[in-house]
Amino acid sequence: MRSRVPFFVRRPRAPRRYNANTPLGKPPLPELRKDPITGSWVIIATDRSRRPSDFSRESVVIKGGRFCPFCPGNELKTPPEVLAYRNGSAPNQPGWNVRVIPNKFPALRVEGTLTREGEGMYDKMNGVGAHEVVIESPDHSLTFGELPEKQIESILWAFRDRSLDLKRDTRLKYILFFKNHGEAAGASLEHSHSQLIALPVVPRQVQEEIDGSRRYFDFKERCVYCDMERQDSGAARRVVIETDHFIAVCPYAPRFPFETWILPRRHVSHFETAEPALLENLAWVMRTLIRKLDRTLENPPYNWILHTAPVHEPYMPHYHWHIEVIPKLTKVAGFEWGSGFYLNPTPPEEAAKFLRDAGLI
Amino acid sequence: MRSRVPFFVRRPRAPRRYNANTPLGKPPLPELRKDPITGSWVIIATDRSRRPSDFSRESVVIKGGRFCPFCPGNELKTPPEVLAYRNGSAPNQPGWNVRVIPNKFPALRVEGTLTREGEGMYDKMNGVGAHEVVIESPDHSLTFGELPEKQIESILWAFRDRSLDLKRDTRLKYILFFKNHGEAAGASLEHSHSQLIALPVVPRQVQEEIDGSRRYFDFKERCVYCDMERQDSGAARRVVIETDHFIAVCPYAPRFPFETWILPRRHVSHFETAEPALLENLAWVMRTLIRKLDRTLENPPYNWILHTAPVHEPYMPHYHWHIEVIPKLTKVAGFEWGSGFYLNPTPPEEAAKFLRDAGLI
Repeated sequence: MRSRVPFFVRRPRAPRRYNANTPLGKPPLPELRKDPITGSWVIIATDRSRRPSDFSRESVVIKGGRFCPFCPGNELKTPPEVLAYRNGSAPNQPGWNVRVIPNKFPALRVEGTLTREGEGMYDKMNGVGAHEVVIESPDHSLTFGELPEKQIESILWAFRDRSLDLKRDTRLKYILFFKNHGEAAGASLEHSHSQLIALPVVPRQVQEEIDGSRRYFDFKERCVYCDMERQDSGAARRVVIETDHFIAVCPYAPRFPFETWILPRRHVSHFETAEPALLENLAWVMRTLIRKLDRTLENPPYNWILHTAPVHEPYMPHYHWHIEVIPKLTKVAGFEWGSGFYLNPTPPEEAAKFLRDAGLI
Repeated sequence: MRSRVPFFVRRPRAPRRYNANTPLGKPPLPELRKDPITGSWVIIATDRSRRPSDFSRESVVIKGGRFCPFCPGNELKTPPEVLAYRNGSAPNQPGWNVRVIPNKFPALRVEGTLTREGEGMYDKMNGVGAHEVVIESPDHSLTFGELPEKQIESILWAFRDRSLDLKRDTRLKYILFFKNHGEAAGASLEHSHSQLIALPVVPRQVQEEIDGSRRYFDFKERCVYCDMERQDSGAARRVVIETDHFIAVCPYAPRFPFETWILPRRHVSHFETAEPALLENLAWVMRTLIRKLDRTLENPPYNWILHTAPVHEPYMPHYHWHIEVIPKLTKVAGFEWGSGFYLNPTPPEEAAKFLRDAGLI
């Protein structure tokens, strides 16, 4: 399909792997860059990428061989499913394509009334919410990047369906979809899966994006993400993939090496309003991006997080849903947690070039 | 010294180690708790601590045997020192107690004028700042927790001296002191050291603490940290160590298991104004806390970060310097980065009890 092929990816090339010895050209001086949404500053410190201990990542390899509660035939070993796309088979039996179940070790529970209370000067509420697992394929042996395009489309439909269902619960303000791929990125089971957490509060990072993008909107009368899309798509320096519907870019001030965002090109604040053509194209873009990361970085562990507007908020002209993909390459995440200040050894322009050069796989 | 002994630690007990099988009593239902400073919500989800993969940490062990640029005799293998406490020996020679050097792979450089500029819609500045390493002891074989109390006091003096020196550079707004202990927490060399990064901007987490504590102050006309100190010191449920000058507490809404903060009991916004008696007592508290963590969690990797007011700001009635200590116990740090939303499997009341029970070591 012509429209899906990014204009600047001319032909697949031999894979070019990224490691500490890959020359990056003359390293520019360290630079501080500001995230235009949250206002955080990031150090882009290319000198540090020379250290041999950097990027000593663990490739994710499916080992198999152990009992897996997510495999077909073991449906009764998990909590009963809340959604499954099936070929006419009975619930909690084999014959599904994508299966969504409550997390066996839930961080939050659906039961009970949401109560807020004080504890002296402190504030708490009971842990009302939902914590579900999206089993992304019946096939244990495939990683997310190896799934067929149609399969990824089904996963995206499952996200949409679960969003629309959970949205009916007015106690829940936010639905967070995310994937931990590989043990180093927090996955405790290797069978490909993602998770959703439905929360009675809006996560802080999302709230800051909403507040920051509102400030930008108040000042410019434009959406900051739309501006990013316009500025970056022209220059192509940070663009990885571009289609009619989406752009995948390494953001100007990334916190992590090879951090990449997927943005819909047309302004939409809520993911769950995405129409079928958009989800179809998104499946292609996600698959292509993950395969590029797998090739360039040798199957790295990674996380991705779907950032979308709070479910009960009306359409927001300033907020723009998107997906943030973060390969886990550096062990250095120590003081960053505590300071909110990030040191990134790889300029996004270099990362984007490596990912573009990986070709369409 | 009587005044240093927390009133509720009656006598040293046999070490009680914390692992996934340690019974925590009946797990309470998951609870959402709000950090009173930043307003972030955290899930305290005790159910999840049952998972066997949790807390499969790597104990930090000093291996030695390799060439170490921080060891005495190798002074010329590092950039020339900017500070050293010596017994009359010449600079960059053996005979020091604590030695501060520029980082060989600096994230920021001291040279040049600070220039801010735009890049289309984006903002950047050149990476002016300082990045230094504090070599905490000439002895390669000792971890921070094994250092004598006087040695830790010298390290704190080095922090203070470097702060006062760097403060003279008006380009620098913030001085961040932190320690990465163990490879899993981001340390690339095992010889005990901490780092400072002097920045032309205030790190986001600190700025949010300053803003949040100002909101609290505007509303209550009291410092939120002083309120924490008052509320928690009475109840003792989250207190780990209490002396005349400091309190070490597991905060009400910790992001990580066994996260512990050390707060001066008297309100002070800037660390570098601490008087000698305070630093002396702080050395004892830090050493005791780290030794308790080492015993309870089997020498875990950890980070600590000194949070203090921006150097050029005048005294702040709402902000209170403190140290945040975060053992690195869980691999799950995936979606947390992206959402700013934390799942913590260990209630701080339980963590504090384990640390209190470790005794005074």
